[in-house]
Amino acid sequence: MDVIEYTPEPEQYAWTFGGVAPTHQIKPGSMLKLWTDDAFCGRLRNITDMPSVSLDMPYVNPQTGPFYVEGAEPGDTLALHIVDLTPARSWGASTTIPLFGGLTSTDRTVTLQDPLPERTWIYEVNTERRSVEFVAQSTELRLELPMAPMLGTVGVAPAAGEARSSLVPDTFGGNMDTPEMRAGSTCYLGVNVEGALFSVGDGHYRQGEGESCGTAVEGAMNVTLLVDLIKGGAPAWPRIESDDHLVVIGSSRPLEDAWRASQVDMIHWFGELYGLDKMDGYQLLTQISESPLANVCDANYSAATKVPKELLPAANAYDGMHRRLRELAASVV
Amino acid sequence: MDVIEYTPEPEQYAWTFGGVAPTHQIKPGSMLKLWTDDAFCGRLRNITDMPSVSLDMPYVNPQTGPFYVEGAEPGDTLALHIVDLTPARSWGASTTIPLFGGLTSTDRTVTLQDPLPERTWIYEVNTERRSVEFVAQSTELRLELPMAPMLGTVGVAPAAGEARSSLVPDTFGGNMDTPEMRAGSTCYLGVNVEGALFSVGDGHYRQGEGESCGTAVEGAMNVTLLVDLIKGGAPAWPRIESDDHLVVIGSSRPLEDAWRASQVDMIHWFGELYGLDKMDGYQLLTQISESPLANVCDANYSAATKVPKELLPAANAYDGMHRRLRELAASVV
Amino acid sequence: MDVIEYTPEPEQYAWTFGGVAPTHQIKPGSMLKLWTDDAFCGRLRNITDMPSVSLDMPYVNPQTGPFYVEGAEPGDTLALHIVDLTPARSWGASTTIPLFGGLTSTDRTVTLQDPLPERTWIYEVNTERRSVEFVAQSTELRLELPMAPMLGTVGVAPAAGEARSSLVPDTFGGNMDTPEMRAGSTCYLGVNVEGALFSVGDGHYRQGEGESCGTAVEGAMNVTLLVDLIKGGAPAWPRIESDDHLVVIGSSRPLEDAWRASQVDMIHWFGELYGLDKMDGYQLLTQISESPLANVCDANYSAATKVPKELLPAANAYDGMHRRLRELAASVV
Amino acid sequence: MDVIEYTPEPEQYAWTFGGVAPTHQIKPGSMLKLWTDDAFCGRLRNITDMPSVSLDMPYVNPQTGPFYVEGAEPGDTLALHIVDLTPARSWGASTTIPLFGGLTSTDRTVTLQDPLPERTWIYEVNTERRSVEFVAQSTELRLELPMAPMLGTVGVAPAAGEARSSLVPDTFGGNMDTPEMRAGSTCYLGVNVEGALFSVGDGHYRQGEGESCGTAVEGAMNVTLLVDLIKGGAPAWPRIESDDHLVVIGSSRPLEDAWRASQVDMIHWFGELYGLDKMDGYQLLTQISESPLANVCDANYSAATKVPKELLPAANAYDGMHRRLRELAASVV
Repeated sequence: MDVIEYTPEPEQYAWTFGGVAPTHQIKPGSMLKLWTDDAFCGRLRNITDMPSVSLDMPYVNPQTGPFYVEGAEPGDTLALHIVDLTPARSWGASTTIPLFGGLTSTDRTVTLQDPLPERTWIYEVNTERRSVEFVAQSTELRLELPMAPMLGTVGVAPAAGEARSSLVPDTFGGNMDTPEMRAGSTCYLGVNVEGALFSVGDGHYRQGEGESCGTAVEGAMNVTLLVDLIKGGAPAWPRIESDDHLVVIGSSRPLEDAWRASQVDMIHWFGELYGLDKMDGYQLLTQISESPLANVCDANYSAATKVPKELLPAANAYDGMHRRLRELAASVV
Repeated sequence: MDVIEYTPEPEQYAWTFGGVAPTHQIKPGSMLKLWTDDAFCGRLRNITDMPSVSLDMPYVNPQTGPFYVEGAEPGDTLALHIVDLTPARSWGASTTIPLFGGLTSTDRTVTLQDPLPERTWIYEVNTERRSVEFVAQSTELRLELPMAPMLGTVGVAPAAGEARSSLVPDTFGGNMDTPEMRAGSTCYLGVNVEGALFSVGDGHYRQGEGESCGTAVEGAMNVTLLVDLIKGGAPAWPRIESDDHLVVIGSSRPLEDAWRASQVDMIHWFGELYGLDKMDGYQLLTQISESPLANVCDANYSAATKVPKELLPAANAYDGMHRRLRELAASVV
Repeated sequence: MDVIEYTPEPEQYAWTFGGVAPTHQIKPGSMLKLWTDDAFCGRLRNITDMPSVSLDMPYVNPQTGPFYVEGAEPGDTLALHIVDLTPARSWGASTTIPLFGGLTSTDRTVTLQDPLPERTWIYEVNTERRSVEFVAQSTELRLELPMAPMLGTVGVAPAAGEARSSLVPDTFGGNMDTPEMRAGSTCYLGVNVEGALFSVGDGHYRQGEGESCGTAVEGAMNVTLLVDLIKGGAPAWPRIESDDHLVVIGSSRPLEDAWRASQVDMIHWFGELYGLDKMDGYQLLTQISESPLANVCDANYSAATKVPKELLPAANAYDGMHRRLRELAASVV
Repeated sequence: MDVIEYTPEPEQYAWTFGGVAPTHQIKPGSMLKLWTDDAFCGRLRNITDMPSVSLDMPYVNPQTGPFYVEGAEPGDTLALHIVDLTPARSWGASTTIPLFGGLTSTDRTVTLQDPLPERTWIYEVNTERRSVEFVAQSTELRLELPMAPMLGTVGVAPAAGEARSSLVPDTFGGNMDTPEMRAGSTCYLGVNVEGALFSVGDGHYRQGEGESCGTAVEGAMNVTLLVDLIKGGAPAWPRIESDDHLVVIGSSRPLEDAWRASQVDMIHWFGELYGLDKMDGYQLLTQISESPLANVCDANYSAATKVPKELLPAANAYDGMHRRLRELAASVV
């Protein structure tokens, strides 16, 4: 198995999906051991570091990659199995960026009101207890919260010659900010360009569903991935498979459209796996769907449609790709 | 303790919140043992029963009540503790009503397309196994799904002299269609009119988050409630407390607005419980919120903001109302 | 011709559509000469009168009526021809109500930001020049603006036993806040209950499309109406006919849904008038629709679909009702 | 004055804003005489030409350009004065593309319904009468409609390294599809990259507000432009000035957000021109805004905020750029 280790220098960061030359050419079946910087490029280190001063907009959310996957062609399906996500710093940061976030007016939902104040929170990582610590600034409250590492941003180059900011989620993946993108999961992405040109970034040590204020517990991350390729079968929207769940992530505005996209693609997936027609799929999904939000703060909102495998007949999505990668991961880590 | 048992006759069904005379006057501290008909008034009994023929629109979603609570005044908080929900029929029904549902154009999201076909599914109840059975019509697939009884509709009379259809959720509660409304939960509703005038209905034997096709596994339900009253403290949106979670349900369109309402009221709740200012509350919620959708099919959509108590300091919401009702329920059932 | 003159006393104001007993029973063919108070009940008279102090929420937007129209049954079409709108006071008022309006977060689009400041503007009416005067408070700017009287609120009782606040527009009409509701126009409303129970109010001496800040140049109005009835033919959404235009007003959230509703009903109207199938109607509308917004601030937003008659073949909507009422109006005024 | 004439070959068409090398380098003050192909690349010539067969998705909406403007730097304002728009073919075409348009579900607003049928309409151009002819297919109806040429797509390269499909409107302009983009208008666009890299295309011989079915009377166009540059002053959203109106175009989803963006930027413009603070600007706009929709069918919707100059004090936007270009145009045509 090819194993590629890569820690990008700041000048190697990618800021878009599409429009960037690959840093590596890799074979399906490769393992990647990557380092990803946090969305703030490590610049928020103290509660006195304010985004308006410390950040160099729009240079946030740097990506590691893109990677050119040999043999990947438009219409194929890229499989990325997340073997491991380990925090690469001893602290994470979160902040309120003026006119960004879910509970404020923004550059997309413009009002005449003043922005909310800037405030930065630093979360110390307790590696042993696998936790991070929330420290309130208006009271003495401190809370130990379980660590739950995930990748906010996973995507391929978009179709139609587009290059999209790493802050945007869409059909190509990107900044979906879903907690479902955790170790043990396999993400399926439709390939739009030769080589797929995928990249990853935006590690979160923990994030609630919706990413309300726009920034999770952001932290640099060591990322281990297995990469594989399925000829054909490109899904309309990013799909995720874990041992326990099937998930589809839709991204759009308004939020119901993100949800609708994820729902309809799940119904298509039911059709592929079980031969259900769309009406039976619609009915079944109505009774078993979990619908946790991913982000309600980005340029597109993202919603997950998630179904527990235990409620469904055994199936073999993508010819058992997830199980195979899971076993492979177990054998190498 | 006053115990009121009540099974309404069809002519006693209420079809609105507000605008209906109370069927009973009750004291805070009473227990209600109610029967509620299903949203279809029991008219869909076979997969050949089609909504366009069998239903008498808009006479769907009948409510049991309203109940006048002595001493309840505008600004007070009604507490409804759901002691028990037990299916009152041996089958539940679900269907696709033309131009109603989350994955079709509707009378609110109008397009020129043809409606989806009508199809009705009947779910047999297995009381012993506490399950219902999905039977596909396009394949041989049958799936046993765990029963998960809930009330789709719980609400009080709205403010400002309005009377709202029992199909609508809003600040007064109503047709929120959230699976969080299950036995063991306490629902807090702001009182808008003297006596509160609450009613309940729309039993679901099971429902996924979002209620995609617009109808859950709809079934008549035996409902046991404990009713209590808190002077003052009316929340902006319905709140739910269980042993494990705090929940707020927001209802609006587009869906992000339903979510925003539930998020901001949860931040207010954090302020009440822990003294956090809004920025600290915003930050904490960002990292711990669960955001399961309730319905994306009704006249307003409903979204839940839900936080696990185990991540938070011990608190005593509404002076321990939930715990007290929980204990009382245990003593009487 | 029956002529009814009516100036309600404050205790006779209606605050909802539906849920209110009629003040008068009238015959189709009657003329009404009404006085309507402004949305603020005349309480904002000076730039120092602030809404948070002077208004008695939710008692704003009082309606004159409702009127019971003899013979009107569900499914019929009420025709209201606006003969004349004349300002009944020498000043109009506009203001910014905290957390109400199109360019602020609201109780429906909740954020954590502070509300915009309250500010009240008084517009002196110049009857001779038919103008009102805008007086800036941050500069010396004064602008004379043409008077353009309209009714913000025209509606019937809603269906399904609902009673809706006079602040809400929907299929029953209500607070549509469209400048198309001016003298010379005929409004067609579907009847939902016996007697139709229509009322009118919310005079605006002038309003831009969208009613951005939520309040127009609000002023008491003398309203002359001709009332008639068409058996059957109830439109899905309020329609307006003038000498020059056909208009449909849709009301919903998000705004595209308000627009969609108005568009699709206009395509239906094309079908009724010209026999075009829906695809031809869709195409024709695409090339000739005017789409001025009505309000983007109320509980539902309202959008107009408007087509110039001069681009269309001569037609006889509702058997020439508008022309007949127009001629009748000319004969009596 | 430099005069550049340019008719691109099909292989020179640009399909994105950004990510394309300039075809020409021009000086501020130049005149461009361009030919633009229609959105269908001239492939729909007969009512039997169906989009699913004749179009080569996503290669629709080809752009002429981009043009590199000497001296243009990020933060500057590009001024494009449209001197003349003359149809370059004797027919225009419109069609219904499956799952594209305002009154159908789409790839962004996904439902389970079948798409609407494909149908193509051909509009003969009558040059003398300056009209186009609508020919119904379900009836004998034929209607002569006034020609009203406009450009659907005008934009610069976006910021942050993005390349966006020519089907998308956003802050950089692009596929706004507003009838306000007609001869006699000056469009102001904020510059994001060195040289601005603007391009134009998507000629419409006529279009209603909203572009309901997604395609106007699409036709190849001869386009005469005057290009100039203002140092600094980049507006947040595209602005248009004509002899009679000031206009801002906002683009987003949901539609109210497109409108909000255009409204707030108009209030900023009022501040620049008249020194009004935001509250006075909000109030004035409330009473004088026209709000015609542009498109409700593209990847972002576009809305115009438009104010008549005759209601405002005389002003000199961008130091009289529009007037100067208008005079220059008169002197050269």
